Amino acid sequence: MSTLFVLNGPNLNLLGSREPAVYGHHTLADVEALCAAACQKAGFALRFHQSNHEGALLDWLHEAGRLHQQGELAGVVLNAGAYTHTSIALHDAIKGTGVPLIELHISNVFAREAFRHHSTISPVARAVMCGLGVDGYPLAIDALARMQAQA
Amino acid sequence: MSTLFVLNGPNLNLLGSREPAVYGHHTLADVEALCAAACQKAGFALRFHQSNHEGALLDWLHEAGRLHQQGELAGVVLNAGAYTHTSIALHDAIKGTGVPLIELHISNVFAREAFRHHSTISPVARAVMCGLGVDGYPLAIDALARMQAQA
Amino acid sequence: MSTLFVLNGPNLNLLGSREPAVYGHHTLADVEALCAAACQKAGFALRFHQSNHEGALLDWLHEAGRLHQQGELAGVVLNAGAYTHTSIALHDAIKGTGVPLIELHISNVFAREAFRHHSTISPVARAVMCGLGVDGYPLAIDALARMQAQA
Amino acid sequence: MSTLFVLNGPNLNLLGSREPAVYGHHTLADVEALCAAACQKAGFALRFHQSNHEGALLDWLHEAGRLHQQGELAGVVLNAGAYTHTSIALHDAIKGTGVPLIELHISNVFAREAFRHHSTISPVARAVMCGLGVDGYPLAIDALARMQAQA
Amino acid sequence: MSTLFVLNGPNLNLLGSREPAVYGHHTLADVEALCAAACQKAGFALRFHQSNHEGALLDWLHEAGRLHQQGELAGVVLNAGAYTHTSIALHDAIKGTGVPLIELHISNVFAREAFRHHSTISPVARAVMCGLGVDGYPLAIDALARMQAQA
Amino acid sequence: MSTLFVLNGPNLNLLGSREPAVYGHHTLADVEALCAAACQKAGFALRFHQSNHEGALLDWLHEAGRLHQQGELAGVVLNAGAYTHTSIALHDAIKGTGVPLIELHISNVFAREAFRHHSTISPVARAVMCGLGVDGYPLAIDALARMQAQA
Amino acid sequence: MSTLFVLNGPNLNLLGSREPAVYGHHTLADVEALCAAACQKAGFALRFHQSNHEGALLDWLHEAGRLHQQGELAGVVLNAGAYTHTSIALHDAIKGTGVPLIELHISNVFAREAFRHHSTISPVARAVMCGLGVDGYPLAIDALARMQAQA
Amino acid sequence: MSTLFVLNGPNLNLLGSREPAVYGHHTLADVEALCAAACQKAGFALRFHQSNHEGALLDWLHEAGRLHQQGELAGVVLNAGAYTHTSIALHDAIKGTGVPLIELHISNVFAREAFRHHSTISPVARAVMCGLGVDGYPLAIDALARMQAQA
Amino acid sequence: MSTLFVLNGPNLNLLGSREPAVYGHHTLADVEALCAAACQKAGFALRFHQSNHEGALLDWLHEAGRLHQQGELAGVVLNAGAYTHTSIALHDAIKGTGVPLIELHISNVFAREAFRHHSTISPVARAVMCGLGVDGYPLAIDALARMQAQA
Amino acid sequence: MSTLFVLNGPNLNLLGSREPAVYGHHTLADVEALCAAACQKAGFALRFHQSNHEGALLDWLHEAGRLHQQGELAGVVLNAGAYTHTSIALHDAIKGTGVPLIELHISNVFAREAFRHHSTISPVARAVMCGLGVDGYPLAIDALARMQAQA
Amino acid sequence: MSTLFVLNGPNLNLLGSREPAVYGHHTLADVEALCAAACQKAGFALRFHQSNHEGALLDWLHEAGRLHQQGELAGVVLNAGAYTHTSIALHDAIKGTGVPLIELHISNVFAREAFRHHSTISPVARAVMCGLGVDGYPLAIDALARMQAQA
Amino acid sequence: MSTLFVLNGPNLNLLGSREPAVYGHHTLADVEALCAAACQKAGFALRFHQSNHEGALLDWLHEAGRLHQQGELAGVVLNAGAYTHTSIALHDAIKGTGVPLIELHISNVFAREAFRHHSTISPVARAVMCGLGVDGYPLAIDALARMQAQA
Repeated sequence: MSTLFVLNGPNLNLLGSREPAVYGHHTLADVEALCAAACQKAGFALRFHQSNHEGALLDWLHEAGRLHQQGELAGVVLNAGAYTHTSIALHDAIKGTGVPLIELHISNVFAREAFRHHSTISPVARAVMCGLGVDGYPLAIDALARMQAQA
Repeated sequence: MSTLFVLNGPNLNLLGSREPAVYGHHTLADVEALCAAACQKAGFALRFHQSNHEGALLDWLHEAGRLHQQGELAGVVLNAGAYTHTSIALHDAIKGTGVPLIELHISNVFAREAFRHHSTISPVARAVMCGLGVDGYPLAIDALARMQAQA
Repeated sequence: MSTLFVLNGPNLNLLGSREPAVYGHHTLADVEALCAAACQKAGFALRFHQSNHEGALLDWLHEAGRLHQQGELAGVVLNAGAYTHTSIALHDAIKGTGVPLIELHISNVFAREAFRHHSTISPVARAVMCGLGVDGYPLAIDALARMQAQA
Repeated sequence: MSTLFVLNGPNLNLLGSREPAVYGHHTLADVEALCAAACQKAGFALRFHQSNHEGALLDWLHEAGRLHQQGELAGVVLNAGAYTHTSIALHDAIKGTGVPLIELHISNVFAREAFRHHSTISPVARAVMCGLGVDGYPLAIDALARMQAQA
Repeated sequence: MSTLFVLNGPNLNLLGSREPAVYGHHTLADVEALCAAACQKAGFALRFHQSNHEGALLDWLHEAGRLHQQGELAGVVLNAGAYTHTSIALHDAIKGTGVPLIELHISNVFAREAFRHHSTISPVARAVMCGLGVDGYPLAIDALARMQAQA
Repeated sequence: MSTLFVLNGPNLNLLGSREPAVYGHHTLADVEALCAAACQKAGFALRFHQSNHEGALLDWLHEAGRLHQQGELAGVVLNAGAYTHTSIALHDAIKGTGVPLIELHISNVFAREAFRHHSTISPVARAVMCGLGVDGYPLAIDALARMQAQA
Repeated sequence: MSTLFVLNGPNLNLLGSREPAVYGHHTLADVEALCAAACQKAGFALRFHQSNHEGALLDWLHEAGRLHQQGELAGVVLNAGAYTHTSIALHDAIKGTGVPLIELHISNVFAREAFRHHSTISPVARAVMCGLGVDGYPLAIDALARMQAQA
Repeated sequence: MSTLFVLNGPNLNLLGSREPAVYGHHTLADVEALCAAACQKAGFALRFHQSNHEGALLDWLHEAGRLHQQGELAGVVLNAGAYTHTSIALHDAIKGTGVPLIELHISNVFAREAFRHHSTISPVARAVMCGLGVDGYPLAIDALARMQAQA
Repeated sequence: MSTLFVLNGPNLNLLGSREPAVYGHHTLADVEALCAAACQKAGFALRFHQSNHEGALLDWLHEAGRLHQQGELAGVVLNAGAYTHTSIALHDAIKGTGVPLIELHISNVFAREAFRHHSTISPVARAVMCGLGVDGYPLAIDALARMQAQA
Repeated sequence: MSTLFVLNGPNLNLLGSREPAVYGHHTLADVEALCAAACQKAGFALRFHQSNHEGALLDWLHEAGRLHQQGELAGVVLNAGAYTHTSIALHDAIKGTGVPLIELHISNVFAREAFRHHSTISPVARAVMCGLGVDGYPLAIDALARMQAQA
Repeated sequence: MSTLFVLNGPNLNLLGSREPAVYGHHTLADVEALCAAACQKAGFALRFHQSNHEGALLDWLHEAGRLHQQGELAGVVLNAGAYTHTSIALHDAIKGTGVPLIELHISNVFAREAFRHHSTISPVARAVMCGLGVDGYPLAIDALARMQAQA
Repeated sequence: MSTLFVLNGPNLNLLGSREPAVYGHHTLADVEALCAAACQKAGFALRFHQSNHEGALLDWLHEAGRLHQQGELAGVVLNAGAYTHTSIALHDAIKGTGVPLIELHISNVFAREAFRHHSTISPVARAVMCGLGVDGYPLAIDALARMQAQA
């Protein structure tokens, strides 16, 4: 059974209380539940994490990379939060491990401040999705399932 | 029954023969079939168009805007092709009509030339999806259906 | 009797319903009526057009250019909408035909998004007027009448 | 009876002798006469000033602001000359007093050197007019009269 | 017998009357005659078009692409006029169809305004020629003939 | 009794030995003593931390945010050190928690290298103070006390 | 007894009526009273000025410079208003006289328009404080007193 | 007898005490004496001024312009100090009056901060001289005398 | 009999062995033979040179300039190699001598690295041709012959 | 006996499996063995570390700084991986501790993506070496030994 | 007797025939005569050179540097022509030899194309003079004589 | 026996006397001795050159290229001095000949002026080393020996 990682970066633990006009009222626990349901339907084992430490996200990506080398990874959904815009280390980890990854943002980052328009991750992601609210999580899992079906 | 527009911009009529390493082997007729199936499932009437003329895309968006004012629009999926990167007129039409719209690209535009990284449309779209291949079309229709269910 | 062209670019057919806080509640038909009155007072024959197609605006400018060569043109009022900011072809048509032209905008474009601050047309226009609402149309016709009186 | 200010910035006292190919042969006294006639027609009391000192222009704008708070101001026509392009203080004075103001230039500044294309004033002006020669003054007064009639 | 397309973009219908100091006194009909003679000499069938509509140029390029797939295309000479500097859609059409194309300009665009120095087309053209006046047309046809002879 | 956080970022543990010409001879322990005295005077409980890990600073800000929601936070003094110039995550944490925060720097960052002139934090801080040496700490605590008195 | 200068630049005479959401409801007379109290406590003689003329601010700085050479200056608090962002002359006067000076802004300039983020003064000021409202004035005086105590 | 203006801008009254490593130990009175000697030798009447007010420099330039129209001006030596780098009004005054003018700086501005490398005045000056210390003044007067001799 | 110069800049002596995918397999001797044939046909005496020294290219241009003054120059074909992108001295030599010159590149420089897209020479050349391989040489000679025939 | 630190940043634990075309087939354990041999030869005690956490690298640099103050540090070889390009904190730690440090990269970063061309570390490093593969490690240790021998 | 070098860069051998509207009608031989007269008056031995080779200018500067170390150099007047704008090697030679040098241009480079506004030489020159025509040469020699007199 | 080239660019003949704080007290003869010793140890024949002429460096690189084609080249150490930052011709020569080359700088160029931070050579060099003083030369030779051993 393939494993699917959903990784969340800095400040996403604040979900539900942080700027609800932008991020909505769902908490990170709600998101985890949505992901669990989508993974169950797709037949994936879910690994769901959040950290404010860039290094921790790198460690998890490396872990996903090891599963990928063993053919046991369904893919990664990465909402890197603010590290999206500055982290070359995440870029390198994705490229270096070769994991199939969808970059996800809850809000439409292109309708916000200019410093959110650039992502260091996008060039090494398979796909980018943003602006779909927390529904983006199950849709991204659905998309990874379609990719796997076609591979 | 709500109507859903799928609008395709310049050169998308070449789909299937144009740079298959980037855009895949599906033709625009294949895409239309995928959209028809997704709309049938979601209960939407499909309007599917392609044009090389920026003005024609504007005319269709205005038509969608009139349905939107009458509460008969499910939404718009817009793959504006090369006009994505330069057309302020499309930006204005989306903002001026207020139609719920998902910006779609078949390839991951952020992994390509720098001039494809900027979109004039994104700030006025509800959501942006790219890199999912032609699967992006039914996934975008699915996403619009979820949005409508929550509204 | 001299002919005066009033040319309107993309999305101006939405006038009255599009972002009324920015553009007001007058429709394009209202604008045409204001122009007809001003032309009647000034003794000009009015040609009033709108199109979402850049090529159509070029065709009309060329037509105005032919009248200008015959000494039968009072001038052109051009509200090029979004094409104002990107169209080098309109720049070339104005310069190439030599028509006396006033660039007009309903809103104060300089108080809006940065991408509306640059106009490709301004360097080849005789004059630029913006921020006067739909009153800008009769004021521009008045200005062209004064120019003609002094020539 | 409402008061209307016409304020002229640096070097406009040279009008008539300075670069006539750009600014024409009318003197500042001619301009004042045009304004007086237009104000008489509109029923406004005219205050007409010129100074080479940025601080003097600020003082006059503050004076106009005080009349505006008392409901006795018809508006301001400001030709700020070279200060147009650099003065944040004028920007602040217009915004801080809230006076209805039309930014005016005799020449078409957009057809001249690049450093004349940016104005610090435009974002806080109601309207911008340029390229109409000295006729711009009475046309701007006419425009302020129309604005007042609609308020 | 191979077909050769000569495609002309916006405002080139004004040739002969538009800025003769820049573009010379030859009309577009003169150019067509020059091209017909050069094609006859090279043994090519000539398709000669002009349009102010970007979409029309795209449609013709797609048509050339279909001939190219059938081995019946000698090449394309494209003078895209003002669309040279902004059209990503033309870039995509040339790349997507793979037609052998020479980008042509009558004037030396690099000796003119800065906004004419950048071309979106050049990176996907085989060759670029400018500044040769209307002689550039037969020289470009000659060059395509040499290319074909060497292929 | 309200709690006040003083948070110090990377390399501030070197205070006293690091570039004394820039940062002075006081150690971080000295700074803590100054803060303790100022808090005692203002009636605030002090939380004083330093870390070289960006994630640790985020964790403490979230903790401050929870106190803030309970009405038990006097405010935050943040000297983010080098993360000031690059961390969008700190920006998001401050905005997301809504804590009243003063950005503090010991040296006058604007008199140093250009890369220290931009702060990602300033737009979401209440106030910014720099160049006051270690005296900036008690002055910032004093300022937060004045803010609280006026709220 | 040392003298302390508080210098205020353009438009600060409007304080209290100008954009109260940004600048608050205190007038410049209120600010002078706050400064007088703080100076009395610190044992400084107060010189308090405002002018809309850049040259007047320079003249006062030169006067402060003469007191500084005689060892009779406690320091300068400078709120240069809009001149902050453009005046190299103020920069030169501060550097040329060597007066100890704190740059002050009532609002948090970094949370406002981009053109307010750069200061020509900061590199030659001892310290910068902003966002503290009118309380910034007595806090700056307090900071200068601490500096003097340590010198 | 022709008149020669030597105009000095902001902070030049500090000469001798301001940053002597950059500007030397000569005072402005010393400079006036050097100029008087050079003018006596060349047979020019000297007008020597300094002001911290940009408007005052403009007024003097206009005065020089009036002498120039009467054929009584030998030329202007302008050390505009910090206004050199920002004043478009000085640019306009020099161009508008047409006075023969040498731009002068005591220090080598190109060996100093980047913001001193750009001059708004240079494009309308006859010549530019910098880095010669106070000797630049008599050398500039000598150069104007040579120009007059050749005219 | 007119003389025609073909001048080749740095590294063109490597032709044939250097990056054949870009430059082809023809050697510089082959190119000289092509030029000799084209000149013989056109009735021009050929001067063919290559140097890695910028100064040598300048010396040859000056020599061509002297022939041009005597009416004995057919023109110059200049492939300046890498100096194309940086040499203002070549720009000045072309402008200063006034020689009719065609700038030539074997490869399509616009399809290569960004630093090859800018040419200091183009603004002073009559025409620019690139991407035609070594055939560009005889085509350029042909173009100069047509220019001479029309002069 | 002096201690030498070899510090490795994010993703360097992937060495050997990550992009072998760029980084080669040696693992980090191989690198450690190379370093151990070089240190033994030079008479240095080796401290060899890797972390994905920026904060951990800072902590180790501070530790090296303490040895440096005691005269027991041979130097630091730092391969900061992706943090090279963004970390001002590493810059500050190197400058603040004053440790002799060689910045090292396995690949030639200047032959790769533009975002790898800038290093925040280089200005405070003694030397920079890149492109030498894993041989760069012993060569850097050799270079530090030479530096120490000359001190 | 001190030696004075006057060094002239590329294309200055064309003086008199090259763009006389910009450079005047004097030849380089005329300039040498002016310099000889000025040197005779000042008691300097003249070395006068011109070359189109950057390396030759460097060689002469090194020669001047050797005289400077022996106390036998009066100074250098360098008109580096087009190399002014690009040559870092000239910058390094001036800085490395420490020769007192005046940068000279015949025309006012700041009134010409933008690429002539930047000089790599200015930051290491003692003084810069431009726009004085060929009179600039003797004036620069005069200025070096004054410098020597004051040293 | 393989040949190794050590090539030195402009101003390196000044070594020992030029800015010793930056470049040290070793002369170029000292450097040659260091290289001779290192080559003897590695079994390479040394070719050691210096020139101020860019063309001369190109000629030597071409010579090295010919040895490289014959399998007789050990490699090139290139210290291109100031040409490092501007010479595209050197870039082309290295790429065109394919010689294995190490770019070397005596000083840490990244700790100096911004214009020394960019190298046109780095992208086509195998490796880059800087900041090691004259020891960089033997270390670079050692590195080329290791490369050769592994090939």
